Amino acid sequence: MTQREPAFTRRVPPGDDRERPICETCGFIHYENPKIVVGAVAWHDTRILLCRRAIPPREGYWTLPAGYLELGETPEAGAHREAWEEACARLEIEQLLGVYSITRISQVQLIYRARLRAPDVAAGPESAEVGLFTWDAIPWETIAFPTVHWALNDFHATQGVGAFAPGAGADAPAVGAEE
Amino acid sequence: MTQREPAFTRRVPPGDDRERPICETCGFIHYENPKIVVGAVAWHDTRILLCRRAIPPREGYWTLPAGYLELGETPEAGAHREAWEEACARLEIEQLLGVYSITRISQVQLIYRARLRAPDVAAGPESAEVGLFTWDAIPWETIAFPTVHWALNDFHATQGVGAFAPGAGADAPAVGAEE
Repeated sequence: MTQREPAFTRRVPPGDDRERPICETCGFIHYENPKIVVGAVAWHDTRILLCRRAIPPREGYWTLPAGYLELGETPEAGAHREAWEEACARLEIEQLLGVYSITRISQVQLIYRARLRAPDVAAGPESAEVGLFTWDAIPWETIAFPTVHWALNDFHATQGVGAFAPGAGADAPAVGAEE
Repeated sequence: MTQREPAFTRRVPPGDDRERPICETCGFIHYENPKIVVGAVAWHDTRILLCRRAIPPREGYWTLPAGYLELGETPEAGAHREAWEEACARLEIEQLLGVYSITRISQVQLIYRARLRAPDVAAGPESAEVGLFTWDAIPWETIAFPTVHWALNDFHATQGVGAFAPGAGADAPAVGAEE
């Protein structure tokens, strides 16, 4: 079968109330949904795990072990997987640290506070290097994303607290249209 | 342009490591992601807001005001919107009540604890009726989904608690493959 190129235009499908991308070649309706990123602020004694990105975006900058939640995966399982893939790290999840919204790119991040089971971490394929940093040694000038700042600050604010409401950083007001 | 039908088969795209649905007509790669549902356990004095579903699935059964998060929306804004659409209810969100995982259908639910600003709720187009129920009057036998049970129980367990770790109900163990 000869393939043509996908050619998406935005229109309202029959029975729907919003525009969706529809392929003019094959008629496929692409329902777009916000994406979920899962990850962890993982700590050992007085130090926090960070990974220096080996891939774009923000290659060379420091981030938390985090990535897209896969189909059929719980958020906690995804956070375990990402820590293993990016830093060869095993976690013991404590509690949900924050739910961060980046509405500009329709992303919701679920970041957990977790103990590192052991400090022997190592760079996975998407990390140039990994490291454990005390609070004062965190490379603040070369942090990859605003959400990493939000998560680190929420971590710092809840250290030693037994149970707490997760942080809720966002790039937009957290109110509804009917407010 | 004559449209052919979308004809998806699952194969691993170049440079990827998982099978994705690919349209054999136009070559479009459909990256599937878990979906986010947002909603609220909304309360007024001693009563909790429930909505009786006017649409499948589980038509006629009772549920919380909740639905899919839209693009460009924070989870809190989505919870406000759903409460307004399904029950003409205005919320004052207190904190995240629970993160519930239904891995079988790759869904993550973010359910908030919220005060109802006023008890004058009314059925929106997707609700057959809405009602405010004391704990003992909740129609437990006709609750639509397990996640509604999880959220109601987490609500009950955290009443009067100032700040708490959200519940984390799931249909699968919350551990990673490397555990």
